[in-house]
Amino acid sequence: MSPELHINLANLRSNIKFFQTIIKKNTELSAVVKSDAYGLGIAKIVPEIERYGVRSFFTATIIEAIKIRSFSRDSEIFTLNGFDFLKSNLYREHNITPIINNILEAQKFIEIFNQTQKVAIQLNTGMNRLGLDTQSLLENIDIIKSLPLNLILTHLACADETSNKENKAQKDLFIKLCKFLPNIRQSISASHGTLLGNEFHFDMVRPGIGLYGGIRNNGLKEVIQIKVPVLQDFIIDKNMQVGYNFTYKAKHKMRVATLAMGYADGLPRTLSNIGKLFYGSTPCPIIGRISMDLVTVDISNLPKTPKYLCVFSPEYRVDDFAKDCKTISHEVLVNLGERISRVYSK
Amino acid sequence: MSPELHINLANLRSNIKFFQTIIKKNTELSAVVKSDAYGLGIAKIVPEIERYGVRSFFTATIIEAIKIRSFSRDSEIFTLNGFDFLKSNLYREHNITPIINNILEAQKFIEIFNQTQKVAIQLNTGMNRLGLDTQSLLENIDIIKSLPLNLILTHLACADETSNKENKAQKDLFIKLCKFLPNIRQSISASHGTLLGNEFHFDMVRPGIGLYGGIRNNGLKEVIQIKVPVLQDFIIDKNMQVGYNFTYKAKHKMRVATLAMGYADGLPRTLSNIGKLFYGSTPCPIIGRISMDLVTVDISNLPKTPKYLCVFSPEYRVDDFAKDCKTISHEVLVNLGERISRVYSK
Repeated sequence: MSPELHINLANLRSNIKFFQTIIKKNTELSAVVKSDAYGLGIAKIVPEIERYGVRSFFTATIIEAIKIRSFSRDSEIFTLNGFDFLKSNLYREHNITPIINNILEAQKFIEIFNQTQKVAIQLNTGMNRLGLDTQSLLENIDIIKSLPLNLILTHLACADETSNKENKAQKDLFIKLCKFLPNIRQSISASHGTLLGNEFHFDMVRPGIGLYGGIRNNGLKEVIQIKVPVLQDFIIDKNMQVGYNFTYKAKHKMRVATLAMGYADGLPRTLSNIGKLFYGSTPCPIIGRISMDLVTVDISNLPKTPKYLCVFSPEYRVDDFAKDCKTISHEVLVNLGERISRVYSK
Repeated sequence: MSPELHINLANLRSNIKFFQTIIKKNTELSAVVKSDAYGLGIAKIVPEIERYGVRSFFTATIIEAIKIRSFSRDSEIFTLNGFDFLKSNLYREHNITPIINNILEAQKFIEIFNQTQKVAIQLNTGMNRLGLDTQSLLENIDIIKSLPLNLILTHLACADETSNKENKAQKDLFIKLCKFLPNIRQSISASHGTLLGNEFHFDMVRPGIGLYGGIRNNGLKEVIQIKVPVLQDFIIDKNMQVGYNFTYKAKHKMRVATLAMGYADGLPRTLSNIGKLFYGSTPCPIIGRISMDLVTVDISNLPKTPKYLCVFSPEYRVDDFAKDCKTISHEVLVNLGERISRVYSK
């Protein structure tokens, strides 16, 4: 038996509509679907998002982009991690739009494609991760202007901190730099940026995690639940120990269940003796070390042994789980393993 | 561009031979290949292990077992996570041996298969995770004896602590319980248990992580290296900041590289501002937050920007990396993502 990842497509649709409702009238809603649509499965998620009018998708790599293309014939698909020019034939063959991040990529693009292929550019407005910085842009403005650009984008470093002044600083620099490349669509915001308000919407917003229920916001709904089957239950007496290296010793007689989810499935080992699974809203504490394929929990407070427990509850959402893992929802989602079957509900 | 996981098959073979050399003469060497052979790829790893005489494989689930069967027609394949009796037809169709973990599974097995299918049993000798405990075994000894058992196994909780008395306690209880089920093969040890010495070898040992280079031992070799392509390099001035939430501020002018590996690929976000990548033996500190698809490192100490950096070095092995992630090698390996291409060297 293996865990099931239940994906609520109605709530995904609700989140798409929420973003469509809050953005400016002429702003396009695109979707970030890299890393298998954040673990939710592109084969189902991409066509579903497309049904609600989304026509632009963002991936990290050309290989991901080609997979997306097989589920979406007519959309525009961008590769955020740059132009992988050693695979230039794949961009042409599958009609993928590279996002140029530096001058070398720009030069290679012109050399290979000249004006025959669409292309976007990313500017570095302070995050110092990817994209052309001010100096590179200005020193090479003629090369950049010769590209058949259809989108200029940048990425905000602190968009989840609504009052952080860096957001405005990045936006102001972006506006300034875009003046050197007039009449091209502009995009600055992913999910959190979109929530910062109209002045961050520009011509296109690019939410990812917000679509998939990883942000706590009144307008956004939870999208996923994980059901973990119980493999075995048993009683342990006081002072009996549980799991690898006996990190748990029972303080009293208790009922324990062993379930079919471990760190290979995305239940991080760091939650050993800290995390919990749920029967409805009732928490069942994880006891002992989480194994590769298994987890043991204290089910003494349940009236009988259930067939499965859940990873989330109405009061304990993906972002709460992520906090207990000392990370963010994004990492929780993309770490959900191959063995978990994806189950989609309308 | 994406990272490459380089898998050294010569060193895998060396590790197989090491275990074959240290085990007792009549002990069988099997291999644990669950979770896609700990992330190394069953399509290549299972046939390779089989070439060196291994004839028994262990997986967690029936679905994994069926995948293994497609690469190994004649071996015996066991499912550690029990007998998934709702899928009983799959065990018969693909000739998979379930490992019974409790009485319900034993009863279902008899009801469905009677004597027509091979079966193994797991005993709980103190880890309190899976398997029949002493009381369940003795109360149901007639049912258990009626099973066509070909292997009795248990699992050590503290085998990586060589002087822990619990190892002997589990072994002694296992020997005692096996007396109720005479003339059936016995197995107690995975990798660390096998290293505890002859008295832990019994009829079969079941190494997993030790084969794949995740244990530091004079007889065992490293098997994997990860090469991460550099996407971009740039200079940042003193006080410039890097990455999400600007968690890094440059103390001086420095050269930075952005590489194509993030937490979606198995470079945990917890290594932000802590971990390092390597150019040969030269460490390049990770600066700023690790993103989903990207990592930024300080390459000021390199003479020029390399095409790629490595995750491990001769002095910084998988288990060192795991320690920095506050986990064990197993979790590092099984978290290596789908986007990383697997490259095998003879």
